[in-house]
Amino acid sequence: MDKFKKYRSDTGYSYTLGLSPTVELLAAMPRQVLCVCVSERYVQRDEDLNIFERCEALGVRCERDERTVGRLADKENVYVIGIFEKYQSALDPALPHAALVCPGDMGNLGTIMRTACGFDYLDLALIEPAADHFHPKAVRASMGALFGMRVARFASFDEYLAAFPGRAIYPFMLDGRFELHELAAPVQAAHTLVFGNEATGLDGGFHAYGSSVRIAHSDRIDSLNLSVAFGVAACHFHALSGKRHNPRSG
Amino acid sequence: MDKFKKYRSDTGYSYTLGLSPTVELLAAMPRQVLCVCVSERYVQRDEDLNIFERCEALGVRCERDERTVGRLADKENVYVIGIFEKYQSALDPALPHAALVCPGDMGNLGTIMRTACGFDYLDLALIEPAADHFHPKAVRASMGALFGMRVARFASFDEYLAAFPGRAIYPFMLDGRFELHELAAPVQAAHTLVFGNEATGLDGGFHAYGSSVRIAHSDRIDSLNLSVAFGVAACHFHALSGKRHNPRSG
Repeated sequence: MDKFKKYRSDTGYSYTLGLSPTVELLAAMPRQVLCVCVSERYVQRDEDLNIFERCEALGVRCERDERTVGRLADKENVYVIGIFEKYQSALDPALPHAALVCPGDMGNLGTIMRTACGFDYLDLALIEPAADHFHPKAVRASMGALFGMRVARFASFDEYLAAFPGRAIYPFMLDGRFELHELAAPVQAAHTLVFGNEATGLDGGFHAYGSSVRIAHSDRIDSLNLSVAFGVAACHFHALSGKRHNPRSG
Repeated sequence: MDKFKKYRSDTGYSYTLGLSPTVELLAAMPRQVLCVCVSERYVQRDEDLNIFERCEALGVRCERDERTVGRLADKENVYVIGIFEKYQSALDPALPHAALVCPGDMGNLGTIMRTACGFDYLDLALIEPAADHFHPKAVRASMGALFGMRVARFASFDEYLAAFPGRAIYPFMLDGRFELHELAAPVQAAHTLVFGNEATGLDGGFHAYGSSVRIAHSDRIDSLNLSVAFGVAACHFHALSGKRHNPRSG
């Protein structure tokens, strides 16, 4: 088997750590998968699918390979790793977008991808410098949601705007003009929720891009955690848009 | 100076890592502070308060102590550490509570404390086995919000209920009977938002404790991250209760 090295942002591949995100990867992006490595210690449980059969059906190489798993797992208790070629995506201009301006934390980024996917924000713009969405930590925190989304990176917010003109822009800011719950009007599908960096937020210039929004909270805290703020916003907009899912009826 | 050791859950003290949570600690719990240790490398910036003067005014010992900072900081880039005696709190029966049943992750627990504080859930019940809310990782993720709250631990949810009878209980479950946004009625102050463990959630028995609630999301994800789900719920209940804060007017 090829010798896959520990992740670096400049290599062309990344990987999923664990059975569950590897299954998500195989379901969403089978052609991107270079191979699946399974530890000698992996024992299939009754509720697990048969990873070897699944790979065979998809024409994906799947082998017991203790050394590769050990090298890539990085002390984590992981028995299955899916190695995939990185890919580019184009955002859908007709759909809702999330945009993160200079997010710094890979865990937050992954959690936001998971949340975005849950509230039908399947298109994510990252404004540089931004955490690497293909980093195994981000992939892991996303629980594989990354593979069901389109993620694209832009050198600046203006470059993003030029590529997607005419959208309703909602920058989330501590001093936003509208409180989230005041936004009762239906939202046009082509809108973008914009969030800044964990420590610095969005600079004042973002008020000019659209309807800036604040999430009211007490002054006992300086701000909400970025992924919590994103979740609150995305859930509210999702509810406004009326596309209420009912997990009980499927 | 006494020799303070790296954190262990069975020692009587814990500590804040960094200037900002140490300042929160001094403001909220000055009598619990055993001492403040400052690295030789710490240089006060213009926007920082003078930690030495603040401590002196409070009668708290504050010393340059490179070795203690080095020992406790655990590779983090931290120059100020506040060491405090752990304390017990009693929850206020008249106020809204959050209850976490067996939370496993200290980062999630800290983020939830920060969020809870922001949405006026100042009373937090932890049902054992639960992550240690005094662990430096939880304190850090809370950004010091812990010190503005009351946190109490209970051997079981039934023990919690026996101590606080007559409350409106809202267990958050993937198959909750009510979707969050259906809950339009005003909420009684003495209510409790209940969340389960990150991996397992609440068991089916929790339907019987009150009005179980689900947060509608697409079936593209299995569940929301626990701290995101808590944020969505707490923000919505906070808005329902009508106590909207406006950070722009203070």
